[in-house]
Amino acid sequence: MSPGRPTERALIELIRRAAPAPAGVRVGIGDDCAVLEPSVGASLLATTDLLLEDVHFRRRYARPRDVGWKALAVNLSDIASMGGRPRWALVALACPEDVTTDEVEAFWAGALALAAEHGVAVVGGDTAASPHGWAVNVTVLGETGRPPLLRSTARPGDVVAVTGALGRSAAGLALLEHPDAARGLTAEAREDATGAHLRPLPRVREGQWLAAAGGVTAMIDLSDGLATDLGHVVEESRVGARVDLPRVPVGVSARAAAAALGRDALAWATSGGEDYELLLTCAPDAYARLAAGLETATGTPLSAVGEIAAAGTGLHWTDAAGREVAVGPGFEHFVTGRARV
Amino acid sequence: MSPGRPTERALIELIRRAAPAPAGVRVGIGDDCAVLEPSVGASLLATTDLLLEDVHFRRRYARPRDVGWKALAVNLSDIASMGGRPRWALVALACPEDVTTDEVEAFWAGALALAAEHGVAVVGGDTAASPHGWAVNVTVLGETGRPPLLRSTARPGDVVAVTGALGRSAAGLALLEHPDAARGLTAEAREDATGAHLRPLPRVREGQWLAAAGGVTAMIDLSDGLATDLGHVVEESRVGARVDLPRVPVGVSARAAAAALGRDALAWATSGGEDYELLLTCAPDAYARLAAGLETATGTPLSAVGEIAAAGTGLHWTDAAGREVAVGPGFEHFVTGRARV
Repeated sequence: MSPGRPTERALIELIRRAAPAPAGVRVGIGDDCAVLEPSVGASLLATTDLLLEDVHFRRRYARPRDVGWKALAVNLSDIASMGGRPRWALVALACPEDVTTDEVEAFWAGALALAAEHGVAVVGGDTAASPHGWAVNVTVLGETGRPPLLRSTARPGDVVAVTGALGRSAAGLALLEHPDAARGLTAEAREDATGAHLRPLPRVREGQWLAAAGGVTAMIDLSDGLATDLGHVVEESRVGARVDLPRVPVGVSARAAAAALGRDALAWATSGGEDYELLLTCAPDAYARLAAGLETATGTPLSAVGEIAAAGTGLHWTDAAGREVAVGPGFEHFVTGRARV
Repeated sequence: MSPGRPTERALIELIRRAAPAPAGVRVGIGDDCAVLEPSVGASLLATTDLLLEDVHFRRRYARPRDVGWKALAVNLSDIASMGGRPRWALVALACPEDVTTDEVEAFWAGALALAAEHGVAVVGGDTAASPHGWAVNVTVLGETGRPPLLRSTARPGDVVAVTGALGRSAAGLALLEHPDAARGLTAEAREDATGAHLRPLPRVREGQWLAAAGGVTAMIDLSDGLATDLGHVVEESRVGARVDLPRVPVGVSARAAAAALGRDALAWATSGGEDYELLLTCAPDAYARLAAGLETATGTPLSAVGEIAAAGTGLHWTDAAGREVAVGPGFEHFVTGRARV
């Protein structure tokens, strides 16, 4: 253990200073359990994610502050996808022996900065030594007073829509992995893409607005990419779906990065993953109201990209000429032919 | 990834089969979040622990089933220490690429077996690849309708007492690390000690009984050992404490293992850790009632080992002759001299 490694006591003080008396917290960090006061009549939402160095992030370019931010962000995105309000987080961090106090404090600063943005209290924490790289687990608890928006309730005929623009995170990852390969890219495009990858902005307010607006029939967050996550909706809802590739909103920075790197921005948008935008379904006559209302309320655009089809028809993708193309989850290149579910 | 590695879908089905419709679960594993229905008027308890291979367990002797059991057990013990009722668990597991389906299923079988014993529903799960060894994170959510028992509320003059017998887990660890060094030990003693280390039994029913009985002023679970955990009570309650070493209940199997290995059973009992017994404080006139009642209700003995002293007096240990001896957290040998806090 490094002499600069912070004690558990110092960590507790750090977190207590960040949020001395958060709402709904009877006992915060420092006892065996957090003691929380749920809202009467609300459902409790719970989600957890385990992130490992060199599987989910690379310390070569993800600073400790980024790791803390993203570990919380991916869980807030799960709460957002149900239309919930995130309230409390438990954060466990294991680091190699040579970690410094500055690095651990930066990790917590990243997590606490995003927590503060969303009114989330960090109520449990754990630090341990790791023999191989960083390991982070975050659990977020949220609430909703409405029926949560599920991935299993899409209906044939529904519109499929996504928030924001896709492919930015995959573009950022490509730029971070190949820092010398895109010299012609503007600093703005580079920062937009790498920022989307390192410090994603979970669509918490958008999810809550959409749940309150009514008319959304199913929702999921885009963590694994449009192809995989729409596949989850199709499977869990026992429906089919069709996506018009020209309508998929591809991020400007993703297009610029793809041009500079000789890559395919649309492939990043459909299969790159980690955009943490929301994918929703709604009745066709609800779409215009939801799109206009969401943009007015939050500034975030909503784009219709396809429609839900009958059960057993699978997941299909069509290009600008109306031809069916195959889009593989996690693959970056399209091949013409039959689509796969 | 091994061809035998189970898919996420198979995992979801495994968990759904284990508990098809648990109470208080509106949406279980398989969506972005679990959706839970807390009891009206209850406080919510939340605790999380991250366990890494070769830090918290060794695959050389901890079977996958043991790892699943223990990862849940250490969190149930935290709920027990507040007097709470555990209800829901979220389990994240990352394994190296060469893991087999049998190993992953055994891990889940271990966690689900202990969950079933305590009426806990596993409502969230995550599997990922790990580049180095197993990593497991479990979060447990519980409830209590009473004020939770804290570590910060012990009062000078209170009795200090512990459930069960201590040192068994440390003895088991010593036996597992040195399997050839204790040939004279009976199979019964070996199994008691190694079982205590590999598959600890969290004192959930004991914690609930003690909370309901009234008169307990503070409680904590013995995860880090009596010296360290009583130190937490002393620090958080801003009191001192004195422990009579001859009154510390040392497990029979720990004494046998210590004799066979040439080690000190009392040192294991005070500083070995991982016993997952409960340490409580109570008014002197409540102790006899609590001890008799707990043993009648649960079969678990309660032993008074010392008393809480005034603030600022530190943590002191005395031997059979009444002499003060030093007991270090995590150390296995006693040295005569001043005690440390």
